[in-house]
Amino acid sequence: MNATPSHVVGVGADLFSDAVADQAVAVTRVDWRPPMEGTEADLATVAADPRRRAANEQALAAMLGVSATLVDVAPASEVLGLEPGQFLHAGPPIEWARASGPLRGGLMAGAALEGLVEDPEEAVALFEAGTSVSLEPCHHRNTVGPMAGVVTPSMWMWVLEDKTSGHRTYCSLNEGLGKVLRYGAYSPDVLERLRWMSAVLGPLLQTAVRNSEPVDVTGILTQMLQMGDEAHNRNRAGTLMMLRDLAPAMATSGADSSDVADALRFIGGNDHFFLNLAMPACKLALDAARNIEGSTMVVAMARNGTDFGIQVSGTGNEWFTGPAQVADGLYLGDYGPKDANPDIGDSAITETAGIGGFAMATAPAIVRLVGGSVSDALATTRRMHEITLGENPRWSVPVLDFQGTPSGIDVTRVCRTGILPQINTGMAGKQAGVGQVGAGLVTPPAEIFPAALAALAARARG
Amino acid sequence: MNATPSHVVGVGADLFSDAVADQAVAVTRVDWRPPMEGTEADLATVAADPRRRAANEQALAAMLGVSATLVDVAPASEVLGLEPGQFLHAGPPIEWARASGPLRGGLMAGAALEGLVEDPEEAVALFEAGTSVSLEPCHHRNTVGPMAGVVTPSMWMWVLEDKTSGHRTYCSLNEGLGKVLRYGAYSPDVLERLRWMSAVLGPLLQTAVRNSEPVDVTGILTQMLQMGDEAHNRNRAGTLMMLRDLAPAMATSGADSSDVADALRFIGGNDHFFLNLAMPACKLALDAARNIEGSTMVVAMARNGTDFGIQVSGTGNEWFTGPAQVADGLYLGDYGPKDANPDIGDSAITETAGIGGFAMATAPAIVRLVGGSVSDALATTRRMHEITLGENPRWSVPVLDFQGTPSGIDVTRVCRTGILPQINTGMAGKQAGVGQVGAGLVTPPAEIFPAALAALAARARG
Repeated sequence: MNATPSHVVGVGADLFSDAVADQAVAVTRVDWRPPMEGTEADLATVAADPRRRAANEQALAAMLGVSATLVDVAPASEVLGLEPGQFLHAGPPIEWARASGPLRGGLMAGAALEGLVEDPEEAVALFEAGTSVSLEPCHHRNTVGPMAGVVTPSMWMWVLEDKTSGHRTYCSLNEGLGKVLRYGAYSPDVLERLRWMSAVLGPLLQTAVRNSEPVDVTGILTQMLQMGDEAHNRNRAGTLMMLRDLAPAMATSGADSSDVADALRFIGGNDHFFLNLAMPACKLALDAARNIEGSTMVVAMARNGTDFGIQVSGTGNEWFTGPAQVADGLYLGDYGPKDANPDIGDSAITETAGIGGFAMATAPAIVRLVGGSVSDALATTRRMHEITLGENPRWSVPVLDFQGTPSGIDVTRVCRTGILPQINTGMAGKQAGVGQVGAGLVTPPAEIFPAALAALAARARG
Repeated sequence: MNATPSHVVGVGADLFSDAVADQAVAVTRVDWRPPMEGTEADLATVAADPRRRAANEQALAAMLGVSATLVDVAPASEVLGLEPGQFLHAGPPIEWARASGPLRGGLMAGAALEGLVEDPEEAVALFEAGTSVSLEPCHHRNTVGPMAGVVTPSMWMWVLEDKTSGHRTYCSLNEGLGKVLRYGAYSPDVLERLRWMSAVLGPLLQTAVRNSEPVDVTGILTQMLQMGDEAHNRNRAGTLMMLRDLAPAMATSGADSSDVADALRFIGGNDHFFLNLAMPACKLALDAARNIEGSTMVVAMARNGTDFGIQVSGTGNEWFTGPAQVADGLYLGDYGPKDANPDIGDSAITETAGIGGFAMATAPAIVRLVGGSVSDALATTRRMHEITLGENPRWSVPVLDFQGTPSGIDVTRVCRTGILPQINTGMAGKQAGVGQVGAGLVTPPAEIFPAALAALAARARG
């Protein structure tokens, strides 16, 4: 081989082609893949929809145009109007009877936190009866919740606002890792931590946020992506920047200095604290792209531990659902695949917005948590560009020469290539009460994309 | 070309070879370079020195074995015994007559800060006379100083300790960017900031450090390198982690809460605050490798704005010096190459320890500050492995598959390959008083390595 080849033909082996392309050698890519089975007719119909191109441009521009500002911290009872007995949860709608272990565990913890029962175990009867309690997806209340995503009236919520539209989204405060409600744990220490968060942390953060310069959450995400975070399973730099922005106002909040120190330690000791700001920032952006007739862009991916659901801009609030998969990844301690619940949580809103698994290339250290290799991480981000509508100019990946993150999952591209969105995720124990068992990589069930495509095709036909 | 080549011969074009090697294709490297002119005889002598191999193993192991713990913050008068009229400066020894603009500016600011003169301009006469003042390198007092590196008795110093040996190193507190003493500025706002640092920040940090769990500076460096910092020109994540570690004890320090908030804001607003901890941590590690007979490992690289000097383990405290070069990089505002002073500061201690320019691959975003391309950054770290004795298992570069940073610059490898250490650096204005004008890339003057080699050869001959 010549030391300066002028032309290379790569078939299949994308990584090799990319490496050669990086050396500025001309490359012809031959990466054709067959479309998903049975989608040809719907693909043709949707491709011929005259509204599609402009609708997708509008959806992508709307999403990329949103800046999320942190404007308040307040109880869910106040900002969501949540009443005693009302419970929000992650993912598409589900009833107790079909709920997975970690979702049940989270609901049981929530019931005890609200004083509906003494002992979380007693809540099982309450939810089985279903007369005094009700379940509703977070997404139906402008909210997102990681893992079980359980929100109850007394929980304090981050409030994010798009200053242009005035639209707001919400998320609870992150409890940390291990034995926590969102992973389905409900032991006394879990409840004690939640009570401290409501009694001390929430009010302190409220004072700090109200007395600080507005925190630019979208801007912190920009910086995080330059600092090895992909903002789903790595939120270390984001957490530290949020702490930096709020710490001065926490110091002058008037709260007892030992409470201030406890709050600073709690936030600083939890690398995932910022996840609960990244998620509603992503939802705020994606909500701006909802309900655009003809758009094939995905505006939500969410899992309740049983079902994986997506919503698409051009099909309103309809959920397209299929069975949630078990992630492939690395386990904590002695846990193994038999202990893991299927995929759960609204946190795939990060991938829907182009970060998380879509931005793995910027966070190569993530492979030590979720498995895989560094070259897999780089290849994943490149692959996601094949199923997205564009790039985010504000969120770039330095190691890929500052290319913007792959943004706006396109149902037609997923169906045409068979490439599924890649999600980084935590894994909950499948038994209620266990907590986190690991972290890994997962994709949606393939069939939900042809289902969404069929609905888009039906609308295109009128 | 076949899509799955089994063997490739690469000549010269390292990046291409590396890219192919990354794809797990067998590569034969032919990267022979001629040695530096006139070094053949000394290279042969040093290569034949029977002490060399073990001495270098000992030096490298000593450096890699040190953990730096932050143990105190205190005035230089106390911890260094610095007396009125005594000034420390960056780089090898130099007199006022040969001092560059930024070093002079820093000394003038220091003289005013210590009350030796009212107006910094009056200090010129003081230093020209030289009777009541004296200059000494930071390195001669277990200290390192960024840029001008001026230390005066009233400045508060970080105190780092190697808990195994009890050895300590020191560095002043970082003032921020732009118009600051260390870049040679001496305007009233510069002095006002320094007085606030001595009156408020230093004492507050002292209380916090004394009441906190010991801060593991080497451990923070490990994390930074996973977060896009190379710890010379990017210290953003490091600064945030330091803030996280000290903020709780700052809150409970008993200081006025508005002073606490001011200090939190000052640190959080200065991405380079951690540089002044990274530098003495590197010096602490390298000091452990000093004075090993037969070792060809560099233990200090430092610049005073006029001369670039190195010290080598096997040649004691001797400095090998040559003219400092002007960096090639990006300029702030309207500044250009004609405004830049030659390379200045002890901060090249980071490269000497294997980070900074040596770890550019982990900080691709740095190219937006210092110039060059992302592939240059990756190539630089790979190239530095060719002139170093080993890798640091605690400091790894995720994007290079977690390879350890290139550690222990070997004078013989530099002379044998002609590859010079790559330094990332800030650029000071060459006129006293200007401050920072840019940031860029620079190498040492080549001739200091053959000079050091000659000294090593002379010792080897006995």
